[in-house]
Amino acid sequence: MKPNEFGFIGQLAEFVSQTPESLSLQDDGAIISATKNRLVVVKDLVQAGVHTLKSDSLCDIVRKAILVNLSDLAAMGARPKFILLGLCLGKNVDPEQLTSVAETIRVECEEYSIALIGGDTVIGLGPTTVSVTAIGELASNPILRSGAKTGDDVWVTGDIGDAALGLRLLQSDADSHEFSCLDAGLRSTITEKYYSPSPRVELGMNLPSIANSLIDISDGLFADARHIASTSKVSLQLDLSAVPLSLAFVQWSNHVDNFDLMLRVLGGGDDYELLFTAPIQHRQQIQNMGAKLSVKTSKIGTVIAGNKVVVTNGKTTINTASTGFTHF
Amino acid sequence: MKPNEFGFIGQLAEFVSQTPESLSLQDDGAIISATKNRLVVVKDLVQAGVHTLKSDSLCDIVRKAILVNLSDLAAMGARPKFILLGLCLGKNVDPEQLTSVAETIRVECEEYSIALIGGDTVIGLGPTTVSVTAIGELASNPILRSGAKTGDDVWVTGDIGDAALGLRLLQSDADSHEFSCLDAGLRSTITEKYYSPSPRVELGMNLPSIANSLIDISDGLFADARHIASTSKVSLQLDLSAVPLSLAFVQWSNHVDNFDLMLRVLGGGDDYELLFTAPIQHRQQIQNMGAKLSVKTSKIGTVIAGNKVVVTNGKTTINTASTGFTHF
Repeated sequence: MKPNEFGFIGQLAEFVSQTPESLSLQDDGAIISATKNRLVVVKDLVQAGVHTLKSDSLCDIVRKAILVNLSDLAAMGARPKFILLGLCLGKNVDPEQLTSVAETIRVECEEYSIALIGGDTVIGLGPTTVSVTAIGELASNPILRSGAKTGDDVWVTGDIGDAALGLRLLQSDADSHEFSCLDAGLRSTITEKYYSPSPRVELGMNLPSIANSLIDISDGLFADARHIASTSKVSLQLDLSAVPLSLAFVQWSNHVDNFDLMLRVLGGGDDYELLFTAPIQHRQQIQNMGAKLSVKTSKIGTVIAGNKVVVTNGKTTINTASTGFTHF
Repeated sequence: MKPNEFGFIGQLAEFVSQTPESLSLQDDGAIISATKNRLVVVKDLVQAGVHTLKSDSLCDIVRKAILVNLSDLAAMGARPKFILLGLCLGKNVDPEQLTSVAETIRVECEEYSIALIGGDTVIGLGPTTVSVTAIGELASNPILRSGAKTGDDVWVTGDIGDAALGLRLLQSDADSHEFSCLDAGLRSTITEKYYSPSPRVELGMNLPSIANSLIDISDGLFADARHIASTSKVSLQLDLSAVPLSLAFVQWSNHVDNFDLMLRVLGGGDDYELLFTAPIQHRQQIQNMGAKLSVKTSKIGTVIAGNKVVVTNGKTTINTASTGFTHF
């Protein structure tokens, strides 16, 4: 059986039949109604072997491509509405897989109340490459990376470092001593975080009246903090001991007892947590909001004058310049 | 010198500095103002070696990716406004090339009065893959593939088959007998059409009050006619002798004297001309509009009851089922 674009599109068309914007995926484009709110458009691509493991399944790659784009919308404080999916498949794609991919897309669309409205599917010559365009709506002003103010608190959601640790586990030998300290449950926490990050969409949508600057952590905690610092023209002073860690990360970190390695994994990226700065008078409101949405929020530092990221560990200043994902 | 995403983005950021929507490419997404018109969003990806020759330059591939997406907007009758560019570069990309790519993007944006507002650039593991998202505005109702009515004339813009013939020339030996009939000028007409199609944006924007159905010819004249036929639930009866051909195509066709080959190249795709159907009372208006915009418009057939494409050559019916680009 030869995979067939129109068969796959037919499967997708079935579940988009309630979405007039998609034109049932039968036309050259999608049509979005006039809007009274501003729209946010994000577009990130994911390639197997670059942003994921080569061995990751097609569904895992497509899911991740969708989630990282929703995280970008969360990082602007936008409500996700639509996605378009550009799918460049490997040559030997199994048509059975395409049925699962269609189901994966349907599930994620349902989970985040978004609609697939268009895209393109081709069989390519290289590894699977997924380009997602996500469109969201802004109920109020966006929160940019550039808005951090001296005196702001620096906050993060969730736990940091788990996705990079999960990736490290997936790349290690099955009987690796490094991970012998983690039981099956903890192992699955960190690999799950790598495969299926939780874009902080609801929390992001609540931040416009609270936060001065906002980014999602894709390149890594310290690298993305540098993005806020450079666009806002401030310094972010981060307290390493305040960075929230999962039980899995703490156990692993104690077990390997290697500070440099710990720091590299902590700043390894792929967290898709939100990093934001907010005036100190919003502390209680942020904690209440996190509690209401069941998202951990942690104050990890302060915005000060300057143009860099300063990470302190007790009285020591830590160099984090070499951590984080570089795109080139 | 290592290519650097932020250097490349810096070059792009320079010429988008007049585009507030882009946020200077410094944030997680782009922001589009509230609109009173509907928006059209299209997303097509182009991979080196699949949609272009492996040997095509990075600039040629990026340019083509932009142009084919503008053609999709034209095929909805929309005015192009914005593009987002997802660029997955090959491992050995030369940083010098990126400067030319930035210039190529700037030139095409200027040519079509559009603005780059976002995207993503990564070094990947496979061939160059470019995913463009283009956003346009609809001044009135869109024209869909599904609107063809029995009795409509069938029209195309420009000349058909040149891009596929240009590709064939580029794939042939330099001293190929097949192309000995074409002088340098004619050769360059057809290769130019392959490398740099002319999306019929202005004409497309004028069609909403005239045409009942509209598509751009990417897969091939007959294949795309089938898309109109199937979504409109009609038949398109096309007269082969009315299909507009360039001098280069005619000379080559006479020289090779091979009807099946001619038909395959004619329906080979990549034309990025518009194929549309319109009531017969608009004939004069269509011709006037074409003359005003310096775009050739040719009536090549009629919409009749049925559900297929019927191509006649004099009294003979031609089978075109095997022509055209298939995505899988």
